[in-house]
Amino acid sequence: LRKIADQWLRDILALLHQRRSVTRGEITHSTGLNPASVSHSLRYLTQNGTILKVGELESNGGRRREVIKLNDDAAYFVAVDLEGSRIRFAFTNLVGGIRYRWEEDIESGAPLNVQRVIDGIQTVLRNLAPAQRTRLIAIGISCPGIINKAGQVTAFNLGWQKFPLLAELGKAFDTPLFLEQSHRTCISAERWLGCAQNSDNCVYIAVADGIGASIFVDGHPLVGRDQMAGELGHIVIDPTAPDRCNCGKHGCLESIASSPNIWRQYAEKTGRSVRHIAGSKVIEVFERARQKDPVALEVLDRAAEALGFALACLTNLMNPELIILGGDLIRGEDVFLHRIVKHLKLRAMLDSLEGLQVRITSLGPDIGIMGATSLAVQSSLLDSKLLRKICSPVLDSFDGNRRLNTHRKTRSRAKTAL
Amino acid sequence: LRKIADQWLRDILALLHQRRSVTRGEITHSTGLNPASVSHSLRYLTQNGTILKVGELESNGGRRREVIKLNDDAAYFVAVDLEGSRIRFAFTNLVGGIRYRWEEDIESGAPLNVQRVIDGIQTVLRNLAPAQRTRLIAIGISCPGIINKAGQVTAFNLGWQKFPLLAELGKAFDTPLFLEQSHRTCISAERWLGCAQNSDNCVYIAVADGIGASIFVDGHPLVGRDQMAGELGHIVIDPTAPDRCNCGKHGCLESIASSPNIWRQYAEKTGRSVRHIAGSKVIEVFERARQKDPVALEVLDRAAEALGFALACLTNLMNPELIILGGDLIRGEDVFLHRIVKHLKLRAMLDSLEGLQVRITSLGPDIGIMGATSLAVQSSLLDSKLLRKICSPVLDSFDGNRRLNTHRKTRSRAKTAL
Repeated sequence: LRKIADQWLRDILALLHQRRSVTRGEITHSTGLNPASVSHSLRYLTQNGTILKVGELESNGGRRREVIKLNDDAAYFVAVDLEGSRIRFAFTNLVGGIRYRWEEDIESGAPLNVQRVIDGIQTVLRNLAPAQRTRLIAIGISCPGIINKAGQVTAFNLGWQKFPLLAELGKAFDTPLFLEQSHRTCISAERWLGCAQNSDNCVYIAVADGIGASIFVDGHPLVGRDQMAGELGHIVIDPTAPDRCNCGKHGCLESIASSPNIWRQYAEKTGRSVRHIAGSKVIEVFERARQKDPVALEVLDRAAEALGFALACLTNLMNPELIILGGDLIRGEDVFLHRIVKHLKLRAMLDSLEGLQVRITSLGPDIGIMGATSLAVQSSLLDSKLLRKICSPVLDSFDGNRRLNTHRKTRSRAKTAL
Repeated sequence: LRKIADQWLRDILALLHQRRSVTRGEITHSTGLNPASVSHSLRYLTQNGTILKVGELESNGGRRREVIKLNDDAAYFVAVDLEGSRIRFAFTNLVGGIRYRWEEDIESGAPLNVQRVIDGIQTVLRNLAPAQRTRLIAIGISCPGIINKAGQVTAFNLGWQKFPLLAELGKAFDTPLFLEQSHRTCISAERWLGCAQNSDNCVYIAVADGIGASIFVDGHPLVGRDQMAGELGHIVIDPTAPDRCNCGKHGCLESIASSPNIWRQYAEKTGRSVRHIAGSKVIEVFERARQKDPVALEVLDRAAEALGFALACLTNLMNPELIILGGDLIRGEDVFLHRIVKHLKLRAMLDSLEGLQVRITSLGPDIGIMGATSLAVQSSLLDSKLLRKICSPVLDSFDGNRRLNTHRKTRSRAKTAL
């Protein structure tokens, strides 16, 4: 079966990953493969149960068309999201469906012990049925901060300075690991399943324990010299501010508008203890603001001004059509978003604002998990061994019946098609 | 001779445009054309005098290699630069050499009359020798502000609001016209002839009558949704500032740090008349600062803080390796640059600053002319008719002797090469 080139399978599965449901004609058109290669590959993928042919559409000419989809459960991934005030682990499938999940709170301030990441992944793996374990392809990890080429992570919020995350996890697991900055995984998730599916100039900004921007311009992710583009959180908004940032400077956007710092300011002004700065406490500030607590409103206003200003810089520099906001902020959309937009409008150029949309992510807190899954799927497709594993016959799947039916149907059609 | 595909000539001339001097092997390698097509095209271009074979290098293996260059004067262009406090017109050749130039001051504030642009171009054209006129290919125009797809220009500094520049000039001239934002022409010039020749993540920022950034990221120019990326000048640094911007807002970067506004602040503080705000007067402020005039230093410090902040936003968001500063600022490098860099360092993230270079343009005030020429060359190569005109036999050129020699040399070699 090696006659079917890896590249054909890769191109077809990548297209199905992005569009989810396509016709044979769309595959030929979008991949640029010749129709014979497409037919050959589709037959192979259908026989193996990697893809399904569902429904038939009557097109204008009266000719029948099949609609092709991925078999959701042809391949599984473990997705890990280390961004925010909780760490999240999930067992996901080819289309981003979550089969199991495991989450736990982490404390800001203290360095994250890597054993907790290992334990979380193992908790997920322990719960798998044998059939699921067989089709586990890779582990995708969405991680805040900066990741160098050796897989070392520098993330103030995790207390990591060039921490060899990839090497440490590699010791604990046999399964291939893929690691990516959460900036990038999140915009990838938005473009895969969220509100940026048709947008070539879009930005995803997480306001959580940190603040980072994931930028797509002219249809490409913005990477930069050292893969550090999008470091919105460490723009120094006010160098004379008393707010001290984890990065060592004063008055960074993060030190004013990140979740733990919004809560810190509220606690300081109301005489509460600020020893344990938990990001999740920001929800309390949103709640107080709803009740018109003037201190909460004052703190949110200051954070909104800093955020609006940073968004204005971004808007003028990048000229995007869509800014998506996520992170803890989604819990305070009603009291926080309009304040941010007000300051954005005050500070950006009118022409750049025209036609710009600012939205809250539709993926909710699962965006990191979706992004880590997307990373794992895309990276696995690029690896020939993993690609072939994804395409291997689905035998033990609990989805077996459906597959066999499809299989039979396809075989009979294949004769006429060729 | 139509057997030689336009695309071959285009690829080869585009490579020569960018690298200026290449070997036959480099052409084959970089263009991906097959060696026979390259040989065929090079013979044609040499016979016509479009390219020259200069010198021979002994390579390691002892084999002789020719070095191929453009014939500087195989094609001419009129380059127009409307940025800054002067408008500049030049008659340039294929490698950016300036044969004639015409410059004149314009006043800030009053709308620019398009007749002055037409007159300037005509002044240049009137001075051409007939041989030069024959080989004039196109007019390239580098223009500040925003240019829409219809060639209409909105530039506060020129007093233009959707002004149909392309249409107006089209009525006056038969020669093909190419129009591009000065942001983009300037970075194009830096990548062609300046200090960004090997840089894939670089930014050019002109501080003149306006302030705009021209951004290259991951090897591509940043364009944005409406081609408005890089609008650094209209980031509102301080919405409560008294400084009123041409765009209608208060406290934009331009209203604090552009050349006319630096002079305006100095004039206001020293009780001078500010009726005629000329950008070129900024040089007087630089001179006063050199003499330690406290008012001049105060004004420059404020401008430097605003500029440093804007550069910090850009540095964090884009992660470039090189920021090039140009415009009137080059006249005050000694008193202004270190102040800007100080504030940049205060406000950007340390990791992004590491390895970042900030430089003054090496192209001086000619950068816009070089950029307009680069635009005209590149655009002409994309147009089959203009491409063939560039490649047409150089007969009347004052460079004829040199060409004929080369011609003869090449012919004899061509026999052995094939």
